[in-house]
Amino acid sequence: MAIETNGITNQVWPNIKNKSVNLKQFFPIFEWGKTYDKGQFTNDGIAAIIVTIMLIPQSLAYALLAGLPAEMGIYASIIPIILYAIFGTSRALAVGPVAVVSLMTAAAVGNIAEQGTADYITAALTLAFLSGAFLILLGIFRLGFIANFLSHPVIAGFITASGIIIATSQIKHILGINASGHNLYELISSIFSHLDETNIITCLIGLSSIAFLFWVRGGLKPLLLKLGLKPKLAEILSRAGPVAAVVLTTLIAWGFNLITQNVAVVGDVPQGLPPLSSPSFSFDLWSSLIGSAILISIIGFVESISVAQTLAAKKRQRIDPNQELIGLGAANLGSAFSGGYPVTGGFARSVVNFDAGAATPAAGAYTAIGLAIASLLLTPLIFFLPKATLAATIIVAVLSLVDFSILKRTWDYSKADFIAVTATILITLLFGVEIGVSAGVVISVFIHLYKTSRPHIAIVGQVPGTEHFRNVDRHKVITQNNILTIRIDESLYFANARFLEDQLYDMVAEHPKLEHVILMCPGVNEIDMSALESLEAINERLKDLNVKFHFSEIKGPVMDKLHKTEFLKHQTGRIYLSQHQAICDLTKGTDPSCDETEKVLEE
Amino acid sequence: MAIETNGITNQVWPNIKNKSVNLKQFFPIFEWGKTYDKGQFTNDGIAAIIVTIMLIPQSLAYALLAGLPAEMGIYASIIPIILYAIFGTSRALAVGPVAVVSLMTAAAVGNIAEQGTADYITAALTLAFLSGAFLILLGIFRLGFIANFLSHPVIAGFITASGIIIATSQIKHILGINASGHNLYELISSIFSHLDETNIITCLIGLSSIAFLFWVRGGLKPLLLKLGLKPKLAEILSRAGPVAAVVLTTLIAWGFNLITQNVAVVGDVPQGLPPLSSPSFSFDLWSSLIGSAILISIIGFVESISVAQTLAAKKRQRIDPNQELIGLGAANLGSAFSGGYPVTGGFARSVVNFDAGAATPAAGAYTAIGLAIASLLLTPLIFFLPKATLAATIIVAVLSLVDFSILKRTWDYSKADFIAVTATILITLLFGVEIGVSAGVVISVFIHLYKTSRPHIAIVGQVPGTEHFRNVDRHKVITQNNILTIRIDESLYFANARFLEDQLYDMVAEHPKLEHVILMCPGVNEIDMSALESLEAINERLKDLNVKFHFSEIKGPVMDKLHKTEFLKHQTGRIYLSQHQAICDLTKGTDPSCDETEKVLEE
Repeated sequence: MAIETNGITNQVWPNIKNKSVNLKQFFPIFEWGKTYDKGQFTNDGIAAIIVTIMLIPQSLAYALLAGLPAEMGIYASIIPIILYAIFGTSRALAVGPVAVVSLMTAAAVGNIAEQGTADYITAALTLAFLSGAFLILLGIFRLGFIANFLSHPVIAGFITASGIIIATSQIKHILGINASGHNLYELISSIFSHLDETNIITCLIGLSSIAFLFWVRGGLKPLLLKLGLKPKLAEILSRAGPVAAVVLTTLIAWGFNLITQNVAVVGDVPQGLPPLSSPSFSFDLWSSLIGSAILISIIGFVESISVAQTLAAKKRQRIDPNQELIGLGAANLGSAFSGGYPVTGGFARSVVNFDAGAATPAAGAYTAIGLAIASLLLTPLIFFLPKATLAATIIVAVLSLVDFSILKRTWDYSKADFIAVTATILITLLFGVEIGVSAGVVISVFIHLYKTSRPHIAIVGQVPGTEHFRNVDRHKVITQNNILTIRIDESLYFANARFLEDQLYDMVAEHPKLEHVILMCPGVNEIDMSALESLEAINERLKDLNVKFHFSEIKGPVMDKLHKTEFLKHQTGRIYLSQHQAICDLTKGTDPSCDETEKVLEE
Repeated sequence: MAIETNGITNQVWPNIKNKSVNLKQFFPIFEWGKTYDKGQFTNDGIAAIIVTIMLIPQSLAYALLAGLPAEMGIYASIIPIILYAIFGTSRALAVGPVAVVSLMTAAAVGNIAEQGTADYITAALTLAFLSGAFLILLGIFRLGFIANFLSHPVIAGFITASGIIIATSQIKHILGINASGHNLYELISSIFSHLDETNIITCLIGLSSIAFLFWVRGGLKPLLLKLGLKPKLAEILSRAGPVAAVVLTTLIAWGFNLITQNVAVVGDVPQGLPPLSSPSFSFDLWSSLIGSAILISIIGFVESISVAQTLAAKKRQRIDPNQELIGLGAANLGSAFSGGYPVTGGFARSVVNFDAGAATPAAGAYTAIGLAIASLLLTPLIFFLPKATLAATIIVAVLSLVDFSILKRTWDYSKADFIAVTATILITLLFGVEIGVSAGVVISVFIHLYKTSRPHIAIVGQVPGTEHFRNVDRHKVITQNNILTIRIDESLYFANARFLEDQLYDMVAEHPKLEHVILMCPGVNEIDMSALESLEAINERLKDLNVKFHFSEIKGPVMDKLHKTEFLKHQTGRIYLSQHQAICDLTKGTDPSCDETEKVLEE
């Protein structure tokens, strides 16, 4: 067994201390670019072709979800993907329109302008611009940690509720009716009031597309494997389901000229590369969109970074959250100036990209080229594409996001998390995505504050024959009549300062023979100014009762701060490194183990 | 030395467990009422006379500050004080209009109606009603702890900034000009633009009143003591300064008929008992006032409970925060129905009440009777009372609240608290009281989350010859090449879950020979669902690297929750009660102290 004395160097925080600014840091492209070779090119190229085919229907569908012209979905996938390739750190992340962000765009822009107007489009561009600017600011100031304020269960609940809202919002396209709303109640009542307008042919196309896509998802891959295809090819073919549905239903709509039957189709989509567009710089528009832009940025960032880290972990690569903010910010700015709308790293497209073998961010650039070609050449072909088909692809995609298992898991583990996730789901369904996710954050924070405001406080005693001290309620321990040792299991700060005072006075009142109170602080990671004032008050109160107030096991950083205050001058008792030392000293060391410990610690 | 094994009973939370509902709890009057005797009556009576004399000018002045007719200040001191005597728990607290709450009332109501209109008065009554209802709700649901979310430095900063705003808002009365505004900038620019309207005689009255009151505060008491008066009498006489100023300047204004010189006076004040008034039940008004009502309630409660606890501590009495909510709520409801406006326990009046010897809440009731008599008989006498005199009493009173020492103290102790208090002061001065105090709360919470989101993480080793483990950077300790022990000094929850992951991966990457990682958790008071997912991820990642993941010193409540999860089944390592046990086990116990410890703990 190798024993080293203090053999570990002080490099505890290397990733913070050793940050130096260089080109590679802000342009990760210089890192992977210099070793780029033909093998990587081939891998990236194949991945790009597969992703491109998958992205065409998806981009059109999400633009529809956002209430925007179909081509904006494609535009939002071209320039952003290239900018992310330059600035982002994930090697497999595919950036573009995603379901939840599209829904949030519809909610934000829908408050300001009517769908189908030029104002609506300008607002969407401006939203992308503001999101991009906000993300870049966060990145520059290295504030990526704010995404951590969204707890995992809240995110899971939010995604589930969003999935339900998105799927419901697409029912109108399946039925061929007009309906609108930003929450479940509005959507459902709107659908019911227009139910009589249902177009049977549209409905047939929509429902059969849904059935087909579910079958492709569940049944096609096993079938292909049985037919002897390689697993990877089978996987890719089964991902092409939406393309097949698009091609088939477009042909049907064209062949039977279903426009005459009032089947809604995508219609004229301008042919050409992404246009140079400009967001609005109106102060009024900015102030009405900035709140939504912040929410979209944070939700988009959380979604994107989760995908990026999941994929990076599989190949032992590292994601830099602050650089990701820059990458996503650049992508959104690019989207704002090239006819797009807010984008982020999408789960489905990134997984396909990864599975198809994308080796570097160049795969994204090639995908962009593929989409640009599609935008130039293929748009006339989708004139007859039924909107019901696109709605079907959205419904099937988002229903896979709906997962209520988080309710069961949080119920079993933590009622506080359960309350947060339930509230997030219900509020999102009832009041829409923006209020839902904001409420989720506020509730998480509030529950955290509530829990830490009533910390666990235990009276402890010595485990016989050891130097350990444990809760008198859980262990058989030794205590003294004149000494009360209280262990507080929480940092002391404003939210619990008064609680500690109250509890301590009550405990002291129950122990009339007291001479010493020891506050044992192994769980106290901080004492803020409010708590310091409470400790002063406790010290004064105990002094009046002729009880001395001691501390044990205060941590280094906390002690450093206490040394700067007057408190130690007023303190009636002492501060002990260990609880064992405290008991030895206060009981005049009749325990045999005391002599030894004292000697060793004083060396 | 008396050693008891587990001699302390399980009554750790008596004040929570033993709560039974009874009359005394909701009507504390039954507790002190049954032992009420003549001695107490005398004490209470004397205190009441002194407080009544002091309250007359103060109540008029604060009504003026709130922008309300002078008599509403008196009405707000009569019924509320009686209701608090019935429902409140403090024996010395004097409830009525106070400076900060009056300012907040002016800010809230000023947004809705013009001063001097009936709507303004209705809005003030409604504000009192909503505050009262909110306080009672908080009390019924025992939510008094929410006042703890205001940190002490934020409150100190808020009070200081409010004092400055209040003093500035009174300058117009001293100068005899018209000016308005809810923040420092508006007030000062408004004063400057009306400076040419200054009324010289008003100004003389105002400035000499200020000078007189400051002298009374600082110089009168020593003088009276020198003249041989008893300290208590000297104290009471020096508190009567405002009354003297009121009487003198009223006589001057009457004698010289200063109304003809355009000196603003209080004018006609209706003679009579508090009227039966009714707040509005309009939904629109409620929704525009509810936010302000909540802020006023919380600020008022915090101010009141601080005063009550300070005074109770001097006589070893206890204050029940939840019952205080009921008491203050009842007082505000009473105020709403008797021509008053929002009230709370005031510092100055309570201290006078206490110093004058008030023994029970009955002193408050007698004060109410005194004020009722004043309201019936004395109001005609104050027709000529100059507003400048009232403004002077306010200025002198609130300037004693202004205390910038909190800046120095927080700067020395905690930069985080310094930021919170500075931001609260600046935002209150620049944007007014409501935004100021809200920002203070948000900033405190955000700073707390930020600090706990980047917790202190230390690599620890064994202090030679002991069972203690300490930071390798601070102590000379023993470590092993193949074992990395990391102590995390914070509860694990959503805000820091990912940070732990990142830090741990970095540390592991620096120790290539690792076989074991031990997470030492004496500071971990909670592991929430997000953190549990991060621990699962760490466990998986370390498994891929053939490193086992152990825990030591997990606290009882945390362990109880972990037992409910799948985590323990997947965990590659073990869970040790103590870090010493972990090292003994993983190093195969070559350290001589190991055998003994193992034996003892397994008993």
